[in-house]
Amino acid sequence: MSQRRKSAAVSDITERWGRSYETLIGHVVGLTLAVAGMGILASGVVDIWRDGPDVAVLLVIGTVVTTVGFAAWRFTKLPRQIRILDVFVTVTLAWVVLMVVGALPFVLTGWIPDFDDAMFESISGFTTTGATVLRPIESTGPGVLFWRATTQWIGGMGVIVLVVAVLPTVGSGGMSLLEAEAPGPTGERLTPRVRQTARRLWGVYIGFTVVLALAYMVAGMNLFDGVAHSFTTVSTGGYSPYNASIGHFNSVAIEWIAIVAMFFAGSSFTLLYRLIRGSAGPLLRSKEFHLYTVIVIAVAAILFVVNDAPGSIADRIRGAFFATTSVVSTTGYATDDYGGWSQAAQAVIIMLLPIGAMAGSTAGGVKLIRVLAIASYAHREALRHLHPRLVRPVRIGGAIVPDRTANKIVGFMVLALATFGGGALVIALTGPDIVTSFSAAGTAFGNVGPGLGDVGPAHDFLELPRLARWVTMGQMLLGRLEIYPVILALSVVTLRRRHRTLSI
Amino acid sequence: MSQRRKSAAVSDITERWGRSYETLIGHVVGLTLAVAGMGILASGVVDIWRDGPDVAVLLVIGTVVTTVGFAAWRFTKLPRQIRILDVFVTVTLAWVVLMVVGALPFVLTGWIPDFDDAMFESISGFTTTGATVLRPIESTGPGVLFWRATTQWIGGMGVIVLVVAVLPTVGSGGMSLLEAEAPGPTGERLTPRVRQTARRLWGVYIGFTVVLALAYMVAGMNLFDGVAHSFTTVSTGGYSPYNASIGHFNSVAIEWIAIVAMFFAGSSFTLLYRLIRGSAGPLLRSKEFHLYTVIVIAVAAILFVVNDAPGSIADRIRGAFFATTSVVSTTGYATDDYGGWSQAAQAVIIMLLPIGAMAGSTAGGVKLIRVLAIASYAHREALRHLHPRLVRPVRIGGAIVPDRTANKIVGFMVLALATFGGGALVIALTGPDIVTSFSAAGTAFGNVGPGLGDVGPAHDFLELPRLARWVTMGQMLLGRLEIYPVILALSVVTLRRRHRTLSI
Repeated sequence: MSQRRKSAAVSDITERWGRSYETLIGHVVGLTLAVAGMGILASGVVDIWRDGPDVAVLLVIGTVVTTVGFAAWRFTKLPRQIRILDVFVTVTLAWVVLMVVGALPFVLTGWIPDFDDAMFESISGFTTTGATVLRPIESTGPGVLFWRATTQWIGGMGVIVLVVAVLPTVGSGGMSLLEAEAPGPTGERLTPRVRQTARRLWGVYIGFTVVLALAYMVAGMNLFDGVAHSFTTVSTGGYSPYNASIGHFNSVAIEWIAIVAMFFAGSSFTLLYRLIRGSAGPLLRSKEFHLYTVIVIAVAAILFVVNDAPGSIADRIRGAFFATTSVVSTTGYATDDYGGWSQAAQAVIIMLLPIGAMAGSTAGGVKLIRVLAIASYAHREALRHLHPRLVRPVRIGGAIVPDRTANKIVGFMVLALATFGGGALVIALTGPDIVTSFSAAGTAFGNVGPGLGDVGPAHDFLELPRLARWVTMGQMLLGRLEIYPVILALSVVTLRRRHRTLSI
Repeated sequence: MSQRRKSAAVSDITERWGRSYETLIGHVVGLTLAVAGMGILASGVVDIWRDGPDVAVLLVIGTVVTTVGFAAWRFTKLPRQIRILDVFVTVTLAWVVLMVVGALPFVLTGWIPDFDDAMFESISGFTTTGATVLRPIESTGPGVLFWRATTQWIGGMGVIVLVVAVLPTVGSGGMSLLEAEAPGPTGERLTPRVRQTARRLWGVYIGFTVVLALAYMVAGMNLFDGVAHSFTTVSTGGYSPYNASIGHFNSVAIEWIAIVAMFFAGSSFTLLYRLIRGSAGPLLRSKEFHLYTVIVIAVAAILFVVNDAPGSIADRIRGAFFATTSVVSTTGYATDDYGGWSQAAQAVIIMLLPIGAMAGSTAGGVKLIRVLAIASYAHREALRHLHPRLVRPVRIGGAIVPDRTANKIVGFMVLALATFGGGALVIALTGPDIVTSFSAAGTAFGNVGPGLGDVGPAHDFLELPRLARWVTMGQMLLGRLEIYPVILALSVVTLRRRHRTLSI
């Protein structure tokens, strides 16, 4: 049965891809390109405003990409029916196209001469990781720096969410698209209509960005810095136009603003929407939010105690909370180099890297809701040793997790471990030391940004061998899209070959 | 329902513990004590033979422990019915009593003056870990060195298996006892009668020990060294009377013998029994054995390539195979200090530490069969993203793993990860660096022996802070008994309190 269904799905795709006007993939990728193109155009405008050197290049790339994207969108239409495999292929391909296009401004302006390094910067941007190969950051043109921040802002809430917000409602297909991109095991609709859900999410996201930019500016940033840092805070991305990151400003107020903003950016945008609409209950009752809060407070307390770096009590409290929210929310900003902190502090950080924050946030990695589900699963299995016939569902707080969902979560955790461990191993085989290798793998998969050792906050990813950087690029994408869409999209190649073999 | 059943189980235990003659726990712990006592007596005899300084102490301890053990055994009898919770409590308590008694020879002879260090050596011995706090090893009395090897030999096949071999057949209760101690997710009966299964396993084990001791002696060891190393090879324990471990002999023949012996000791004794009885099929067809073999060859190849230590090709091949079989079989012998090997080699080793070898071997940790099952589980869940209604069992090779078993394996893996990661974190908080902390946690839980960094093959566990050593003691026990028996036995405390509260 499985074989037949696969073949049917594949022949369906093959047929549809033959027709030029009715294609999910062309339509969605077209819109994605248009979004990217407009972002590049905006960066060109910023370059004009800030007297940057890359105005012409950025405007040309932006115009071409926008035109191609809109053309692809106009000359295609959505098919009436979409299949689940199409969804995975579409989402993955849209992201890959986005990341390739996103590399163009870096490489064509010459700020990052090698294409694979430009790809690294682009992938790290769109996945909101924030690991960088741009060196030195400060002297880079303002347009390109703005584009760098924009990649994170687009990738944070997700380009597919943006696309769905524009598309006419596509029903359960649209929901599948959202779910394939959304961080976390379950997609939650804010309204019965998918398009409206997507619009509301982007609404909260834009509102958060504007408020935060204003807050940063009140605290002392100029307009450019305020917007750039707001873009990379709400997206939990962590790119900064400065080598010293937020530490550049040396401002208590800016750091506390960033701490609070990172904390909320790492929570759930669905719950934030409800909070804004006056209903704080869903957020405050969320077991995942409780765990998130407990982790932040506990880790900050541990870091405060074990961090042997010098400073006043107030400085050390702020430093502990900053490092904690930065890592737990997967933002990756730095104020000081926790690579210089005690080994115990680093051990805490290395274990947090691949875990990520809450489902429905802009974070990467495993997500806390899965940790809760899997803890409940393990608890049930322990009880089953005493009561073999025990029937007991997996729960998160009071809510029952259906067995199917729980099984999927387990499957994901296994793949996440394999991605993390296997990646770390390959990185180590290219030369770096153990701490660097594992933290690079963790920070890439968790979309955090800096790791420890040679990829710590005071270093950059150029210190990794080239092959290792390619590994981390793959891990960043797997971490952002939560593995399945990518490997299932890759499986289409196998499936097609199988299909052809059958039809000969 | 769950609450009622718990209460019933508890009241049953409480009642039975009140009666003085019918007690599973007293009967089994008594026999366990007797086994330990006879081992200590034998060590006293060895001390006489080798003119050691501890004859009197060893003989007195041995006599007292043996007498107490036999008395407890004689004045109790098995209850007609045993409950599953009794099994976990009995097995855990038998092991704890064994480990406390096992510490006496170390502390009362004065070779390890602190009781908690003696406990460490005893726990590390019985769990076949092989991490040591004895310093310096060479000058220690021969009787105590023999007892040290004997703890591993008893712990390897398992004291409960030995007890069951002596008990009259207790049916499914005996099988539960075996399963609670046996490494791996499923207990396999060689014959319908549990007692005979236990006897055959101990038969293979003793035969293997004798053959290996002779082989070691042919290759150049004296009788004492041959027996001591055979004890700690077949049990995948890794204690050696020499600081330099097997490297002390500087013998190509001894090293290759150890490589082959460690390889088979890390496979399944059930399958080895069948092999000896002329049926090689079950071993050769076992998917777990295939994976085990592939891992050994692949890891040895990687270590050969990335190991930048000097030496001839033949030396480096042997060194790679020795380190690989030593770590993968969880023996923990050393020929040279792989702490000095390249970072990549160490990264490979650190990931192998908590995994362990095959189910039914004498190894600790996760076991390869669980890795296979969980990979199949993850594969199914990936397919379910494409075919949501897919019905497909978890498989290991061709064999179907029932859902209940698969779920238990998942539960175990979660607890294993928590034990490994949580332990590493606590160790790091006591001071050691990251690599030391994680490798100490991995080597303790996997019952391997040496780790990396400050607990590498050229170091000992005295370099860890005292609190960290207590953490590793817990991890060794959890690794050997595979977590559940221990935490379920601990839960009896909670259950009892709950019961009392109810009956007031």
